[in-house]
Amino acid sequence: MAKKIIGILGGMGPAATADLFSKIIVSTKAANDQEHLHVIIDSNTSIPDRTEALIHGGEDPTEQLTLSARRIAAAGAELIAMPCNTAHGFYDAVCAAVDIPVLHMIRLTAQELLLKGIKCAGLLATDGTVQSGIYERCFEGSGIELLTPSPAAQAAVMQLTYEGVKAGRRDFDTSEFKKAAQELLDRGAQTLILGCTELPPAFEMYDLHYPHIDPTLVLARAAVLAAGGELN
Amino acid sequence: MAKKIIGILGGMGPAATADLFSKIIVSTKAANDQEHLHVIIDSNTSIPDRTEALIHGGEDPTEQLTLSARRIAAAGAELIAMPCNTAHGFYDAVCAAVDIPVLHMIRLTAQELLLKGIKCAGLLATDGTVQSGIYERCFEGSGIELLTPSPAAQAAVMQLTYEGVKAGRRDFDTSEFKKAAQELLDRGAQTLILGCTELPPAFEMYDLHYPHIDPTLVLARAAVLAAGGELN
Repeated sequence: MAKKIIGILGGMGPAATADLFSKIIVSTKAANDQEHLHVIIDSNTSIPDRTEALIHGGEDPTEQLTLSARRIAAAGAELIAMPCNTAHGFYDAVCAAVDIPVLHMIRLTAQELLLKGIKCAGLLATDGTVQSGIYERCFEGSGIELLTPSPAAQAAVMQLTYEGVKAGRRDFDTSEFKKAAQELLDRGAQTLILGCTELPPAFEMYDLHYPHIDPTLVLARAAVLAAGGELN
Repeated sequence: MAKKIIGILGGMGPAATADLFSKIIVSTKAANDQEHLHVIIDSNTSIPDRTEALIHGGEDPTEQLTLSARRIAAAGAELIAMPCNTAHGFYDAVCAAVDIPVLHMIRLTAQELLLKGIKCAGLLATDGTVQSGIYERCFEGSGIELLTPSPAAQAAVMQLTYEGVKAGRRDFDTSEFKKAAQELLDRGAQTLILGCTELPPAFEMYDLHYPHIDPTLVLARAAVLAAGGELN
């Protein structure tokens, strides 16, 4: 079967984009360059902040998101993966801009948790993702209870994301974030959803260890399969 | 100043492409997504093996290389970085295919070694890169002596690259490669040129520690500056 070209609509942020690309590579069964999947990436850092747009009346990212989607489709991509949870608040507009399928990271994550038998999960995500209710909508009817952090804990998640990872600060103090993660587990979460694509790199960068599900990895594996690749 | 869009002509292999992308991100001074540089990547794994073409009469990669160069230029890239040393054997054809500048990783590396005051360097690279003499040509007149491995040591470099990194085998036995690296240092090399873009990921993956220069990092930093970005 001819393999399909994967398009990554990225830049939100660049570290998350690199993380998805790396996870696609390591998830693909391949013995040489040519057996790997063809991937076209637009790491478009001109896309305005999604959380700002969703809850603070900031600049609408739809124009840049659809420009990028069209750019990678025109370059030959045959399916799109978008490594930014908050950007999925604009998913319908991205789909409408192109004639190729756009994988939905959050719906895929809900399916993965169902398959793992999870009944209660804690959501670590940006204010935009949490307040837009996109995770709740994707989990509706799944039977999985979704816990969100208390206001103080949520602020710690935002700080780790924006002042830590996005700012590239390796010396960021993670103690408040650790309290936020532990609070969700203490309230009954069996696993933590790393519902912001900057969090998997953060878990590595800051050596954080909690039971978790990584939607970027879920998306990477789904993209490999959708492109006709074989999983490692 | 308006920042330029960086194009990465990649897929040779995908791990090297992800490595250059990550190095561009960490080399850029940026406090948020929007301050990072816009990067468009074609990880085109259909490009035939460069070493096979250069020394074993294998399929010519020129067509796929120029297709990729045009693809990323058409998508909006304003300069090109090509994270594959051996592919620089086809540099002139890539330049001729597009109207945007193509950075030359090997010439940049020669300049970097000059600036560091290196008088003798060991070259770790594929058979294609070594036998094509591209490093020798780029170092001509620089006053830097370039040492290449003995035949047995060169075979160990190829094995690490193809049977280790490109095949994604984390359990690959690196003892022969270590002998090859040590041999070059014993012969007087002050540093080792990681002259295959799979080697920087290999040094990380297999926890290898030798004095070295990383042409991928040199290329990343040059790309950031050429795009009008500020180095971290």
